[in-house]
Amino acid sequence: MSYFNRQPIQFEGPGTNNPFAFRHYQPDAVVGGKTMEEQLRFSMAYWHTLVADGSDPFGRGNMLRPWNHLQGLDLAKARLEGAFELMEILNLPFFCFHDVDIAPEGETLADFFKNVDTIVDEMKGYMASSGRKLLWNTANMFSNPRYVHGAATSNHADVFATAAAQVKNGLDIAKELGAENYVFWGGREGYETLLNTNLELEQDNFARFLHMASDYAKKIGFDGQLLIEPKPKEPTTHQYDTDAATTISFLRKYDLHNRFRLNLEANHATLAGHTFEHELRTARIQGMLGSVDANQGDTLIGWDTDEFPTDIYSTTLAMYEILKNGGLGKGGLNFDAKVRRGSFHAEDLISAHVAGMDTFAWGLKAAHALIEEKVFENLIEDRYRSFTTGIGKEIVDGKATLDSLHAHALTIGDIENLSGGQESLKAKIQDVIYAVR
Amino acid sequence: MSYFNRQPIQFEGPGTNNPFAFRHYQPDAVVGGKTMEEQLRFSMAYWHTLVADGSDPFGRGNMLRPWNHLQGLDLAKARLEGAFELMEILNLPFFCFHDVDIAPEGETLADFFKNVDTIVDEMKGYMASSGRKLLWNTANMFSNPRYVHGAATSNHADVFATAAAQVKNGLDIAKELGAENYVFWGGREGYETLLNTNLELEQDNFARFLHMASDYAKKIGFDGQLLIEPKPKEPTTHQYDTDAATTISFLRKYDLHNRFRLNLEANHATLAGHTFEHELRTARIQGMLGSVDANQGDTLIGWDTDEFPTDIYSTTLAMYEILKNGGLGKGGLNFDAKVRRGSFHAEDLISAHVAGMDTFAWGLKAAHALIEEKVFENLIEDRYRSFTTGIGKEIVDGKATLDSLHAHALTIGDIENLSGGQESLKAKIQDVIYAVR
Amino acid sequence: MSYFNRQPIQFEGPGTNNPFAFRHYQPDAVVGGKTMEEQLRFSMAYWHTLVADGSDPFGRGNMLRPWNHLQGLDLAKARLEGAFELMEILNLPFFCFHDVDIAPEGETLADFFKNVDTIVDEMKGYMASSGRKLLWNTANMFSNPRYVHGAATSNHADVFATAAAQVKNGLDIAKELGAENYVFWGGREGYETLLNTNLELEQDNFARFLHMASDYAKKIGFDGQLLIEPKPKEPTTHQYDTDAATTISFLRKYDLHNRFRLNLEANHATLAGHTFEHELRTARIQGMLGSVDANQGDTLIGWDTDEFPTDIYSTTLAMYEILKNGGLGKGGLNFDAKVRRGSFHAEDLISAHVAGMDTFAWGLKAAHALIEEKVFENLIEDRYRSFTTGIGKEIVDGKATLDSLHAHALTIGDIENLSGGQESLKAKIQDVIYAVR
Amino acid sequence: MSYFNRQPIQFEGPGTNNPFAFRHYQPDAVVGGKTMEEQLRFSMAYWHTLVADGSDPFGRGNMLRPWNHLQGLDLAKARLEGAFELMEILNLPFFCFHDVDIAPEGETLADFFKNVDTIVDEMKGYMASSGRKLLWNTANMFSNPRYVHGAATSNHADVFATAAAQVKNGLDIAKELGAENYVFWGGREGYETLLNTNLELEQDNFARFLHMASDYAKKIGFDGQLLIEPKPKEPTTHQYDTDAATTISFLRKYDLHNRFRLNLEANHATLAGHTFEHELRTARIQGMLGSVDANQGDTLIGWDTDEFPTDIYSTTLAMYEILKNGGLGKGGLNFDAKVRRGSFHAEDLISAHVAGMDTFAWGLKAAHALIEEKVFENLIEDRYRSFTTGIGKEIVDGKATLDSLHAHALTIGDIENLSGGQESLKAKIQDVIYAVR
Repeated sequence: MSYFNRQPIQFEGPGTNNPFAFRHYQPDAVVGGKTMEEQLRFSMAYWHTLVADGSDPFGRGNMLRPWNHLQGLDLAKARLEGAFELMEILNLPFFCFHDVDIAPEGETLADFFKNVDTIVDEMKGYMASSGRKLLWNTANMFSNPRYVHGAATSNHADVFATAAAQVKNGLDIAKELGAENYVFWGGREGYETLLNTNLELEQDNFARFLHMASDYAKKIGFDGQLLIEPKPKEPTTHQYDTDAATTISFLRKYDLHNRFRLNLEANHATLAGHTFEHELRTARIQGMLGSVDANQGDTLIGWDTDEFPTDIYSTTLAMYEILKNGGLGKGGLNFDAKVRRGSFHAEDLISAHVAGMDTFAWGLKAAHALIEEKVFENLIEDRYRSFTTGIGKEIVDGKATLDSLHAHALTIGDIENLSGGQESLKAKIQDVIYAVR
Repeated sequence: MSYFNRQPIQFEGPGTNNPFAFRHYQPDAVVGGKTMEEQLRFSMAYWHTLVADGSDPFGRGNMLRPWNHLQGLDLAKARLEGAFELMEILNLPFFCFHDVDIAPEGETLADFFKNVDTIVDEMKGYMASSGRKLLWNTANMFSNPRYVHGAATSNHADVFATAAAQVKNGLDIAKELGAENYVFWGGREGYETLLNTNLELEQDNFARFLHMASDYAKKIGFDGQLLIEPKPKEPTTHQYDTDAATTISFLRKYDLHNRFRLNLEANHATLAGHTFEHELRTARIQGMLGSVDANQGDTLIGWDTDEFPTDIYSTTLAMYEILKNGGLGKGGLNFDAKVRRGSFHAEDLISAHVAGMDTFAWGLKAAHALIEEKVFENLIEDRYRSFTTGIGKEIVDGKATLDSLHAHALTIGDIENLSGGQESLKAKIQDVIYAVR
Repeated sequence: MSYFNRQPIQFEGPGTNNPFAFRHYQPDAVVGGKTMEEQLRFSMAYWHTLVADGSDPFGRGNMLRPWNHLQGLDLAKARLEGAFELMEILNLPFFCFHDVDIAPEGETLADFFKNVDTIVDEMKGYMASSGRKLLWNTANMFSNPRYVHGAATSNHADVFATAAAQVKNGLDIAKELGAENYVFWGGREGYETLLNTNLELEQDNFARFLHMASDYAKKIGFDGQLLIEPKPKEPTTHQYDTDAATTISFLRKYDLHNRFRLNLEANHATLAGHTFEHELRTARIQGMLGSVDANQGDTLIGWDTDEFPTDIYSTTLAMYEILKNGGLGKGGLNFDAKVRRGSFHAEDLISAHVAGMDTFAWGLKAAHALIEEKVFENLIEDRYRSFTTGIGKEIVDGKATLDSLHAHALTIGDIENLSGGQESLKAKIQDVIYAVR
Repeated sequence: MSYFNRQPIQFEGPGTNNPFAFRHYQPDAVVGGKTMEEQLRFSMAYWHTLVADGSDPFGRGNMLRPWNHLQGLDLAKARLEGAFELMEILNLPFFCFHDVDIAPEGETLADFFKNVDTIVDEMKGYMASSGRKLLWNTANMFSNPRYVHGAATSNHADVFATAAAQVKNGLDIAKELGAENYVFWGGREGYETLLNTNLELEQDNFARFLHMASDYAKKIGFDGQLLIEPKPKEPTTHQYDTDAATTISFLRKYDLHNRFRLNLEANHATLAGHTFEHELRTARIQGMLGSVDANQGDTLIGWDTDEFPTDIYSTTLAMYEILKNGGLGKGGLNFDAKVRRGSFHAEDLISAHVAGMDTFAWGLKAAHALIEEKVFENLIEDRYRSFTTGIGKEIVDGKATLDSLHAHALTIGDIENLSGGQESLKAKIQDVIYAVR
């Protein structure tokens, strides 16, 4: 059956007026030595697209979905079918899910695992017949009331154990479905108030949890990437995996940095006070860029709005970091984005994805052009040239000391700095963005 | 001569109406096994107190200071004399300065160093006769136009070398004056825009710089602490030493974490989106808490206001972390705080310090009582008890695996969590704060 | 029957350790010529206290409530009984509710109104026997999916009409129950994006709606105050009643400012970038201060956290504005505050209210002392004295012109300003706060 | 003589690589029935472009300017000459200044006015020969120490009088030079703390001041617009003219709304938590849109960065509001924008203006196309159609009451709302922006 009654979206080019056509995304077009599909590795987020009902803290669900009359496993199966139909319409090669997205929790943990298994079995069939792949799965360890004080950082050992059981199941599923990655987002791994929190024990336990998970993944031969997703706050007052730098600090402290990489989200970056490209760069230069949650926030708003990405400046600079990283590897661009509560028609799901996919595809073309034309590279080479000879080279080569630099400094007259030229660089980026359109 | 015409501030107790008397600060009173003076180690910030003229981006200097008619070294000497008079009036045992605070820059770097030496010689005399000590000194590597693109992270090797020369001089002075610490605050170590920035080289260079500084300190036998002070932004768009976690991450990456600790500031914490106590706790549990810049910000304002601390909740929780740390060690509470532009009379300097010192002294008494009464400790022990036996102990002892926890989890029925009780804890803190007054 | 098994909370004074006793709130104690009960007019918020289940965007309900097993009208009746029991335990003279808080919506609007009527009938009985009164009621016009695009500012006339019907019913109930006020909080009166919004028509319609409501209130002889509650954003991107100044601007434009006053909330103030006291002062000096939602936010967090008020600085300055206003009139202090998700035990509801009531009672005592001692008044009289004679008086009396002031200005030499003395004022407030404890 | 050694910037079209050429700005090209020059009315800001030296709270001036060796009136004259050279190079038809921008303050107020007169005389000559015009002038009443506590809202009557004298002079100059507008930006009209502030008197005085200014303008026959520029905070903690709504509220309260309009700035909008287009729309629909300060902020930064506008989304939506307003009237687009401290070369001034002018010219073309194609208009007409007939028309016509709407509502079944379609609208705007390039 069909839930959405729509043919697959076609490429019509930038001149089209059709909201249900691609302006930029041509899966087979080659950019930077790979097809767009290979570069962008787009993924559908099960929770926002199949499950979210539009409810918010001030109102209940309002989304019009073809399965609204169903419940339990019937609902789960309908969504699963709808998921694969949507991926076909949108030509999305990947998808992502939390365990609770795909199956009802049931009365007991055992029931839940059984329900998940039921759906995973069906999912396997859809994957085989459609060729769609699992970018990553994860365990939701924040919605159930048992996780009120955290999961791996809960003050209750049984909660920790239950979380561990969910992750074991999740990794088994990842292995079974051939997931490219497995993700940890610490929904309530943080604190509401320091006043009742043993910060040290909670962080130690979190590290223990991740070591166990990594050991288990190894044991079962799961060869996907393990990823951690930073976010600074919400739902908790403070989330431990605040941003890229904080998460890397944690991983280094507990000797986990060779086992985990980061899954970075645009809206989480801005909530932490950083640009998206800052977070990507921070991870990239430390070899920690794993995957991307492709969305955007509203920087005038203080919570996670998870909007579909429609800012070409942002996607261009994001794709620049990704291309400089040599691509996304096993990662992808997962649309962790939801239609606004006011966009409650099923077809809004489609046009919103089209907008997001196109903005990223265009960003890919622009970023590739920026690199080809060495717009930043030439400028940067010029700016830092003084570190390639003389005293600069000695510094970089580790031969300088405070004594030698002190002696040198006293011989320098006026130093002539170069302008940073930020304003014309911004104009230049616009030139490139529009030249590739 | 006297600039301020005021006798040393006396303790009069909480009942006084006198803005020029202490309500709480009794240097010799013993709290937690040490005198208040030993616990609090108050320090005067030379820049805000002796040098700042009240100018801001929208107006020029307006502070009424007794040395406003002087210039050059005469001005520097008058401020020096005034500094020691103020410390005597306020009974401040320590002070802190940047090189440019104490002496005019002159035409050349050599002139500057000579001017600094002149003042340092005089300072030594004042220190000897007064018994006041240097908590820390530092080099200002952000005001001079040469540092427009950073100092240790400048794109220009000569700028790096000049910064190194300033730090060499600063460490020599620290050694000569017996400073307890030497501080690095990276005023422009960051970027305005990623577009023209080689982030990787800049951070590598920053690490090289710190290694050289640490090596030099060792070479000359300076045995004070080396400290880095985090701040997220301002003046640059992004400062590399964003917050405690980011700075520790950087130090770990470059194997510097055994050489440096952190100098944490309340207003920098809130600018980074954290509470003051969060930053202190983050550093404390990693053994990285070095010293404190005692001020407060206005969380409705997006820049560094550096106000004198007058919030008893904040100083209580800060002192709690400090006492749990076993005290400040070589660090201290430096009033990196400035009177408002509207408080331009010289005597505002005095009443503002009194307010700040009293709020911290009171906070010390309250924090000590919280610890004595085990207000948090008992609660936390209860909350995390499940990790001391059974499956919890196995987790902590490293004996659990995902498999064993999965098996355990399937045997658990409903989990009974405890309330976090945040609301009554906040009321309880108020009880303790006021009981000690 | 009893849901909470607890005796009424007693006053034990500031020395008590009992979380279920008042330290400051003595209903009959006289402060500023009225009893505390008369000054503070505390009110319980039905939604947070009786209805909220602890769910948030990342997790489902977890609150342990004695009526969790009930549904529909049975649930509504149990909550009603519980409400009056809680008010007795806490000695709360008032309560507030939205229509949807007290009764299930049913299938149709008519069903809903009937359910509401059923509960209102029972409520009337409880009110009569207990002496508790209705501070205000309101209509929830944001949770039902029909209000997705607003209520009085919806783009759909039938939605506007339905909202009008709810308000008619609400005013009828207010009249019937003798409410002191009727409140409008425009939950979705705002926009998600300007791109699809007719701002002018929406605001005109909003004004039409308020005129109709005011006319109807008059017609039925409801003599309570009509109040509007500002909030800047959340759930919508922009809420029309952004803050006090914006709301007053709107009321003036549409000639509604003699019909409505403001219901001001602490957390909404800080979300708008203002202090609570700023909002209160802004309304007060324009005669627009109607009532208060007593809570507090976390200024490091960008959404409405609605915490119980435990900051004595804030409650002192709030009560100062209220006392200067001549009291709250028909308004009150409504605890629009919720226990944290982690405080899910029923007794947390009680200890949280105790903490909030005490912090406001203490603030009342401190504010009264500030006024008695003319701490601000004397200072302000001094500061502005120049406007009571000479050129200053001419200005205030409307006799000065640019010409006369220009002539005067050219005769002035150096102007001697006074210090604002902000730092010592903050210390002074602390003295007063603790002197009254 | 020539300070900048550069020929006037030419239009080369979007394909050029030349940072010193226009891609979009063609002064004589007709868009929407007027030339681009007439629509955009670009203006140079004297303070940022001629005067600013790059200093910030953490560093002294570093801008390389051809007049850095001069002082006093010589400096003022060189800048004046440079200003007209820059306007010629950039083809800017207008400029704006504060009194202190153009002439040194001297020892006394009389000296200052004399210096200003000297420069105004010369300026008149340059204006006559070049045809450049004064968009607006204003008085700087915030930099001089006398204004530490405000100008028209100072607590000192002599300060008020001095401010009045400056404004009298300013209006005389505006009249003499044929300014199109005169602007009030209340640099320190606000408060640092409510604790020492008589809010009511200050606002009354502010209104008195504006009445006097308006009366004087009338008296001397100045027929330009009088404008107020909102800003929420900085330098003071709270600025009275917070945002458009607040300022209009103030003007209405004091019966000034028929005498003043608003000068709206992009960066001030975002500091107040609003989009630029929100502020423009708010003013527009109330007939209060006077002029525009064309810049952009960094929404991740909490202070006024005053960057040159380079965001095509923002300029498109701004120009949309301006075109819907019927154009800017006597107002213009004033580049209240400064090059970054790192862009300290004189030629950065030129390339930055080119970037800003082009981004606005492109935005004009896009906004015109949006209106021509009725992208928003058609959508909005559809969305609100229910208000043109039946019950909706009764509401708009003022014939409905709560009673009639209540009766109607009870007859309505399920209400079918339309999707807001925000995601596809954003994609559509991109189509239009790029179609016009």
